[in-house]
Amino acid sequence: MILSGCGVFDGSEIHEATLSLLALAKHGCQYEIFAPDIKQHHVINHLTGKEMKEARNVLVESARIARGKISDLKKFNADAFDGLILPGGFGAAKNLSTWAFDGPEASVLPQVEDAIRDMVSRNKPVGALCIAPVLLARIFGQVKVTIGNDPGTIRALDSLGASHVKAAHTEVVVDTKYNLVTTPAYMLDATIDQIAEGAEKVVKAMTDLMDHIST
Amino acid sequence: MILSGCGVFDGSEIHEATLSLLALAKHGCQYEIFAPDIKQHHVINHLTGKEMKEARNVLVESARIARGKISDLKKFNADAFDGLILPGGFGAAKNLSTWAFDGPEASVLPQVEDAIRDMVSRNKPVGALCIAPVLLARIFGQVKVTIGNDPGTIRALDSLGASHVKAAHTEVVVDTKYNLVTTPAYMLDATIDQIAEGAEKVVKAMTDLMDHIST
Repeated sequence: MILSGCGVFDGSEIHEATLSLLALAKHGCQYEIFAPDIKQHHVINHLTGKEMKEARNVLVESARIARGKISDLKKFNADAFDGLILPGGFGAAKNLSTWAFDGPEASVLPQVEDAIRDMVSRNKPVGALCIAPVLLARIFGQVKVTIGNDPGTIRALDSLGASHVKAAHTEVVVDTKYNLVTTPAYMLDATIDQIAEGAEKVVKAMTDLMDHIST
Repeated sequence: MILSGCGVFDGSEIHEATLSLLALAKHGCQYEIFAPDIKQHHVINHLTGKEMKEARNVLVESARIARGKISDLKKFNADAFDGLILPGGFGAAKNLSTWAFDGPEASVLPQVEDAIRDMVSRNKPVGALCIAPVLLARIFGQVKVTIGNDPGTIRALDSLGASHVKAAHTEVVVDTKYNLVTTPAYMLDATIDQIAEGAEKVVKAMTDLMDHIST
């Protein structure tokens, strides 16, 4: 799993990250957690929604979700894993990429792009929740993904050549060319049990892809 | 739910908080989240375990777990709720009380003690995970609780007149006099799916107590 901080407005969405880890454990998967060792774009007071005058580090804050068991993304080795998951939260669009500011012209952090490309080139599945699927569209262009039903984001995906599929809370969209699995999560007005179900379906679809690829 | 920050080493344990919210949602319960508007005891770098030279606020950081939907604990009204849950994490022992420093002589933040006493006096169940049960022992003395199997903490509970019951990851201990439900969670070396199961059993036991009390 790649995290982007700790908190929906400036980092990884905590429920999506936690419930994806839970889904992995329930499916009998072992996991390791990574995050880039970079400064957060900014720090948002999650009570007021306003920017705070302080600086935080993405790896250090992500370690809160990981309970300290986390590595610098630079150490990620695609050969060591069967799949990769990216939870959502604005961190995916502010720290892992510049999507929140540049939309379809966003740049993606090179170490994030490398990790994703390394998995895809090995035919290993990549799961992405919430806003994180935009990274896949930015990197590969003609992917089939969902980010729920937000018209502006759908237009941006269209402009990249991506094929957007509207999906409900607990539905996943599978791209069998690139082995991508996406679900809207909190891009829709979801409850936490819907997030859990979406995360479980992402992991299930990823393991199905692994079985399919290996046979 | 009462939170104590955002991160196991200086606030609420994120998995325990998130998975307790999930358990509530799965049981059809509605919830509101509260935290005290106070400065954190300190800030721990969760990557290195070392203290950082900065100040954070418990309510503001707890808002990360709550996705902004959180209230000052001073506004808590026991009449409006059927139960109260306290996840663990060092925040319970550093911010909600001074247990981490003073053990059985710890003081409990008055607004936390008031919230717990208000529920208990109304025969409404209180659930506590991980280290949070020590607050119940500090407040009421002769309670029956579990904090797993840590000898030092068990001795401290004994000195308060509490009756400690050793329990495994996914077991709960129910005190039918005070209507308390406790589970060890990460006080044991647990996996995230064990935390989820423990949280579900806490909520189940709390709703069973509610049914019992109301009939």
